[in-house]
Amino acid sequence: MAGPEHLVPSFLFVLAGILLGAKLLGELAERIGQPAVLGELLAGVFLGSGALGLIPASGPIAEVLSILAELGVLVLLFEIGLETDLREMRKVGGSAMTVAAVGVVLPFLGGYLYWSHVPHGMGTPDTLQSAAIFIGAALCATSVGITARVLSDLARLGSVEGRIIVGAAVLDDILGLVILTVVSGIAAGGQISPVGTAKIFAVAVGFLVVAIAVGGWVAPRVFRSVARMKVQDAVPVLALAICFALAALADRAGSALIMGAFAAGVILARTDQYHAIVERVRPVGALLTPIFFVSVGSALDIHLLDPTRPGGAKLHLIALGLTLIAILGKVAAGFAVPWARFRRLAVGVGMVPRGEVGLIFADIGRRSGLLTDDAFSVVLLMVMGTTFVAPPLLKLLFRGEAPVPVAAPPT
Amino acid sequence: MAGPEHLVPSFLFVLAGILLGAKLLGELAERIGQPAVLGELLAGVFLGSGALGLIPASGPIAEVLSILAELGVLVLLFEIGLETDLREMRKVGGSAMTVAAVGVVLPFLGGYLYWSHVPHGMGTPDTLQSAAIFIGAALCATSVGITARVLSDLARLGSVEGRIIVGAAVLDDILGLVILTVVSGIAAGGQISPVGTAKIFAVAVGFLVVAIAVGGWVAPRVFRSVARMKVQDAVPVLALAICFALAALADRAGSALIMGAFAAGVILARTDQYHAIVERVRPVGALLTPIFFVSVGSALDIHLLDPTRPGGAKLHLIALGLTLIAILGKVAAGFAVPWARFRRLAVGVGMVPRGEVGLIFADIGRRSGLLTDDAFSVVLLMVMGTTFVAPPLLKLLFRGEAPVPVAAPPT
Repeated sequence: MAGPEHLVPSFLFVLAGILLGAKLLGELAERIGQPAVLGELLAGVFLGSGALGLIPASGPIAEVLSILAELGVLVLLFEIGLETDLREMRKVGGSAMTVAAVGVVLPFLGGYLYWSHVPHGMGTPDTLQSAAIFIGAALCATSVGITARVLSDLARLGSVEGRIIVGAAVLDDILGLVILTVVSGIAAGGQISPVGTAKIFAVAVGFLVVAIAVGGWVAPRVFRSVARMKVQDAVPVLALAICFALAALADRAGSALIMGAFAAGVILARTDQYHAIVERVRPVGALLTPIFFVSVGSALDIHLLDPTRPGGAKLHLIALGLTLIAILGKVAAGFAVPWARFRRLAVGVGMVPRGEVGLIFADIGRRSGLLTDDAFSVVLLMVMGTTFVAPPLLKLLFRGEAPVPVAAPPT
Repeated sequence: MAGPEHLVPSFLFVLAGILLGAKLLGELAERIGQPAVLGELLAGVFLGSGALGLIPASGPIAEVLSILAELGVLVLLFEIGLETDLREMRKVGGSAMTVAAVGVVLPFLGGYLYWSHVPHGMGTPDTLQSAAIFIGAALCATSVGITARVLSDLARLGSVEGRIIVGAAVLDDILGLVILTVVSGIAAGGQISPVGTAKIFAVAVGFLVVAIAVGGWVAPRVFRSVARMKVQDAVPVLALAICFALAALADRAGSALIMGAFAAGVILARTDQYHAIVERVRPVGALLTPIFFVSVGSALDIHLLDPTRPGGAKLHLIALGLTLIAILGKVAAGFAVPWARFRRLAVGVGMVPRGEVGLIFADIGRRSGLLTDDAFSVVLLMVMGTTFVAPPLLKLLFRGEAPVPVAAPPT
């Protein structure tokens, strides 16, 4: 009975609608042979302010939902961390790094050149260069959340391809963080030095290394005591507390929230409570992660898809070009490692979804005035295209193979 | 990465601190033979703005926490509903109703007479009557959340006493709702007719009856389909969606949120997915309900306990008198059913905690200006006293008996 009383009932209706929509469309997706996450994204599109309007785009309910969605993506990355065997990951480390680097450079250059040369007629000549940098940046990031969830739906997180994709997507988040900082500086009208850029990169990588090294030594010792606690549910609740605390710590250290959650999972996978944590955290993730995917879907305005509105057809055409660059740039990255053996096309396609990360870049660009509303819409369409095309393609590419759900539990 | 970025890291630190504090002090409580919920309430007092200051009393983080706490109490009531066997409950229905009615009337009269006759010197003569009504109202409600959690910690939810207490506490919430509406009307300076009061009562009871009757017929049929769904975690997620939707519906119908959550639990206990729901919802409750209890604790300012501050000793004395009335009124209710056989003292003590419900009344009184800050502090001390005294007393009263955790699963 606490809190802002009038907000809560409306919020509960929205929450119930999100969960119901996620499961119904998730079921529909699975019935037609697609990953459930595709259904959750579509549920968001239908429930969003552009369509049925159940999920508000702003206001207090939207803010609470965005925080629950954030908790959802943190729990998801925590679970991915739990399932990540560092030794297995290290074996594909070189491949993942190359895929990540090429998958950032190619789309950035492609997006930048496309926007500065194609006659789109959006924005003024003096903001063209900055806008092109934004467009390029929006093409860089990989949504590790969506990609990992698709792999999990397809039971391929433990395959060589799955490990390369997750590894590269995590590295992409480090690179995305650097780019975000640089681009935010441009939006604020400032200059970023190469030294400053290198420092951001070093902090982001450094946090991951230090957290896993220190935590990997401390956590098994602490959780031997936690397992002996008499109070109920100490193991899963304290595991989640560590996940949230490390996420916040990562942010304070200049890294990203999801890096901390991922590191927490990697660390706790080494405790003797591994199985209890996986089993008891899963229902929490089952409740929270659909909120994230439905929220991502709800950010996409279905009206943008209407080609009959004024300028709609041209906008679609420009967006189509950008989407193709976005897809090709990442797919090419899958072929950037000639010395290793894996399904290159599957890895490339796995890197394609831009999801919420692309949306964040676009939003900063719009709020700073460097991207016009139309240019923002183009980025939105690109994000939609890449996010929706990858799940069914991955499903197709992995067809007929035996499932490899997760790495063996660490010993 | 969505949402108000700067808020999220601070929020995550607070959340991690709440979970850690709840488990550490919960463990401490159990080690010294007390229910874990006592430790969670104390963790709130220590982490609250009156002490360590980790949990803010207002602002965006406090609002998000209050909504998570609300979700926590809803999941808790949902779980209690799942464990409620209506046939067993009906057997104690008469006793529960009598205990509830006496436990509302006696404390109200006691509180009203105490405040209008004891020379406390708080407030002006012309607001004395209204203030006394508020004080009486704050003494009526039973915190079903705290009471049920204590019984659950002690593994006594399924005992005759446990069923009477939970039944009476749920009825108390219906009565509390009526009183809340009447008292809010007084605070707004209006008049409430007997007909209006009767109508509020009828709606609150009617919702519970209709929801359980209709839902009890529909849910088993729906969940036979849900159990056949291919998408993962459909059963627990849709169960929670129903819990949240029914809570919101109860509020819209003029009943209380927690009634809807309780009804949802009672309804879903009749499905063939009962065991799956109980097992998969529990980790969600384990995460969310400590947030509720720690929040309740954090509302209590530890400085109020300082008897050396000016007027502190007198305030303590007046609060002590009110607390005794609050305790005796509920304990007497336990003896109001001479024709039935149960441990009367245990039932009476089980009704004692006022928890968050008493705080809500007091808060409305303060905001309307009818209660002075000192009078509000007195109510706070009463709430603290009743909430902290019941868990150890119940533990003592149930000592040496075999645990009766929950009713047999319904068939």
